[in-house]
Amino acid sequence: MRAAAAEIEHTLDTLLPAEDGAEARLYAAMRHAALGGGKRMRGFLVLEGAAQFGVSRTSALRVAAAIEMLHAYSLVHDDLPAMDNDDMRRGKPTVHKAFDEATAILAGDALQAHAFAVLAHEDTHSYPAVRAELCLRLALAAGARGMCGGQMLDMLAENGAEPPTEAAIGRLQLLKTGKLIEFSAEAGAVLGKAPGPQRHALCAYGRELGAAFQIADDILDATASAAETGKRTGKDAAAGKATLVGLLGLERARVQAERLAAQARAHLDSFGARADLLRMLADYTIARRS
Amino acid sequence: MRAAAAEIEHTLDTLLPAEDGAEARLYAAMRHAALGGGKRMRGFLVLEGAAQFGVSRTSALRVAAAIEMLHAYSLVHDDLPAMDNDDMRRGKPTVHKAFDEATAILAGDALQAHAFAVLAHEDTHSYPAVRAELCLRLALAAGARGMCGGQMLDMLAENGAEPPTEAAIGRLQLLKTGKLIEFSAEAGAVLGKAPGPQRHALCAYGRELGAAFQIADDILDATASAAETGKRTGKDAAAGKATLVGLLGLERARVQAERLAAQARAHLDSFGARADLLRMLADYTIARRS
Repeated sequence: MRAAAAEIEHTLDTLLPAEDGAEARLYAAMRHAALGGGKRMRGFLVLEGAAQFGVSRTSALRVAAAIEMLHAYSLVHDDLPAMDNDDMRRGKPTVHKAFDEATAILAGDALQAHAFAVLAHEDTHSYPAVRAELCLRLALAAGARGMCGGQMLDMLAENGAEPPTEAAIGRLQLLKTGKLIEFSAEAGAVLGKAPGPQRHALCAYGRELGAAFQIADDILDATASAAETGKRTGKDAAAGKATLVGLLGLERARVQAERLAAQARAHLDSFGARADLLRMLADYTIARRS
Repeated sequence: MRAAAAEIEHTLDTLLPAEDGAEARLYAAMRHAALGGGKRMRGFLVLEGAAQFGVSRTSALRVAAAIEMLHAYSLVHDDLPAMDNDDMRRGKPTVHKAFDEATAILAGDALQAHAFAVLAHEDTHSYPAVRAELCLRLALAAGARGMCGGQMLDMLAENGAEPPTEAAIGRLQLLKTGKLIEFSAEAGAVLGKAPGPQRHALCAYGRELGAAFQIADDILDATASAAETGKRTGKDAAAGKATLVGLLGLERARVQAERLAAQARAHLDSFGARADLLRMLADYTIARRS
């Protein structure tokens, strides 16, 4: 995973604008947001999914980088004062702290546009149908019925009068982080023009993995230190934010994350040894300390 | 143009999410931003460009709506307190005033994603290569070397120590508004798989039109009332913002806008009477009072 992250980092570095000039401040903010950090879990999913179907490394890396740009943009906007108001991310000052609010809004906006530019470019895949499909799937995962919708639910839940139910939290997390993780797992099958059943299996794997990942994240927020995670922790409880950890308690939340990770693995049964890293990722997701 | 605007409005209404549910507030903010106002100049360009090549009305309207969504998102973010801090837009409260800042940021983000979802969807064109090309061109017009880069330059110019040169203002406006207007004019040719020379002619028309439009906008800001334009006017001068009007004076700015509009018309010489509305648009652009 560390080797993949280094490859993705290098691809991001190549794809992000870097010229001098009057708008260099925007490029610098985009690079601050997208480079130098993160586990690159979404990018790793793309690479390992693509490896199941013998997709070229160049194609897979471009899609991995595009999804990481989209993810980075969502973090920049979520960290803004009007949203979660966070000062630290990946062990560095957040973009609006290192630059300013206007620049952070614009850098996020530009990263989203750039993700689509990378997917739609002919260097990503020689088949236009594959490029159009990737753009459509990313747009759906990112939009009002995906990430943006989930973040809206999250903001509303924080200010809500009644604590949300387990079902409401599950839906919030599916939209906010689940859809993009699901697409990350599926993207390699789109690139490889994989048969339906294999594409669906990867999709289902991604969905369960995403749910496990989110519970693990909430557990980390409740139990790990900021030094371990590179971001402020304990903030869910401080914000009175309803998470499955708060609702079920630590032990039952752990059990549920383990069950989800096992279900994720089970979806890979029709894949051979080539999918071992994806199986290990399911285990790592719930065992990680950062 | 009014009839086209009504058709585009109807298409936007159909394409924007409208379900009830917990995240309905986000959908309402997206609809507030994208519906009920604006001249739909960009959408009109798409429709008239598409009409030169016999493109189906459904295709043209979807692309027109997608570009208007992208434009609406840029207005929502430009109006934010951290950017231009505007309270009124198209005669209504801006999104962060009618809702709140977090909702406005998210509604803009979701509108951008939705624009790509519309372009990439098979209902927009049966050829995947056309859909991928539309996504690529929109992403480039919207990103760091387009709209976002232009807005960054605009923010920097406002806070800059030295007044920008005429060349710097021209470049700022090309990025901030020109690229998207250029793409709007070109999109019909992409949809119609038009031969290179015709596509380039529409592109060049859009570029000159966009430049004329921007100078006309600056003239309006300096001379029209808020009642006429539906937004606060006189704000360029109040903000000490350098525009061509400030640099050249009203008269020379008017002459330059007229010259650009004439050049835009000239690019249509190889088109027949079908392009008459595009020719009239060039005249209207510099004569309008709102």
